[in-house]
Amino acid sequence: MADILHKVGIKSSSLDEVYKALATVEGLSAWWTSDTRGESKVGGVIQFRFGAGGFDMKVLELQPGKRVLWQVVDGPQEWIGTKVSFDLKQEGDWTIVLFKHQGWKEPVEFMHHCSTKWGVFLLSLKSLLETGKGAPAPNEIKLDSWE
Amino acid sequence: MADILHKVGIKSSSLDEVYKALATVEGLSAWWTSDTRGESKVGGVIQFRFGAGGFDMKVLELQPGKRVLWQVVDGPQEWIGTKVSFDLKQEGDWTIVLFKHQGWKEPVEFMHHCSTKWGVFLLSLKSLLETGKGAPAPNEIKLDSWE
Repeated sequence: MADILHKVGIKSSSLDEVYKALATVEGLSAWWTSDTRGESKVGGVIQFRFGAGGFDMKVLELQPGKRVLWQVVDGPQEWIGTKVSFDLKQEGDWTIVLFKHQGWKEPVEFMHHCSTKWGVFLLSLKSLLETGKGAPAPNEIKLDSWE
Repeated sequence: MADILHKVGIKSSSLDEVYKALATVEGLSAWWTSDTRGESKVGGVIQFRFGAGGFDMKVLELQPGKRVLWQVVDGPQEWIGTKVSFDLKQEGDWTIVLFKHQGWKEPVEFMHHCSTKWGVFLLSLKSLLETGKGAPAPNEIKLDSWE
């Protein structure tokens, strides 16, 4: 098993504001993909779409100001069954997001791509909260010939 | 053991140009850190400095247009002994860089930080080759209170 890890700090924000960007469809659509639908409640499913493809995430945990955990229930074969989590903590003037996308069976090239792409989107989350403007798909940085 | 993985594609560049940015002190100083010194030859050591701290990398492999491999010989405890590699391939109009920083003993918070930070610097490499302008330290995006 292999995991994608990331960390971003968001300046002059709060646990509540960052949590809202991770735990509501409106928040998620402002930094990950504009085409986000579904229900962000425990047991609900959120649909993230990127053109034709995308991911369906079942919401496993929602701990206000602290943690969001999803499991992928539909999408690319390599993603199905993997888990995505965001753990939050405050450090002085910074809200810290520790991110994990865990349970990849093999460190395939697609995992390399997704690792960098998660970094791009987490910088979009940071920008959304620090400046009011994120860069959700389809307006994010394109990384390679797969996009 | 845990690994950091990334992938970036560089448009309208060539294997030779990307290799030069990875295999020469001049190239490295234009996207990773402006304060890069030492000798990029097999068996040589390159010093990468970021303010007070930094990393010393022993060059293990230099395969023109194909692969660069380093081993960390000095720096933060968690980095010592780990290996950093860049594998290159051409796909149509894109030069693809597959990156690995492998051999982390534990997936500590510092590994999360370094994963995102490598993403930031690989976007700087992409920008250098696509636009002529990278964002090496100390002018890169700052991620959190550690910087």
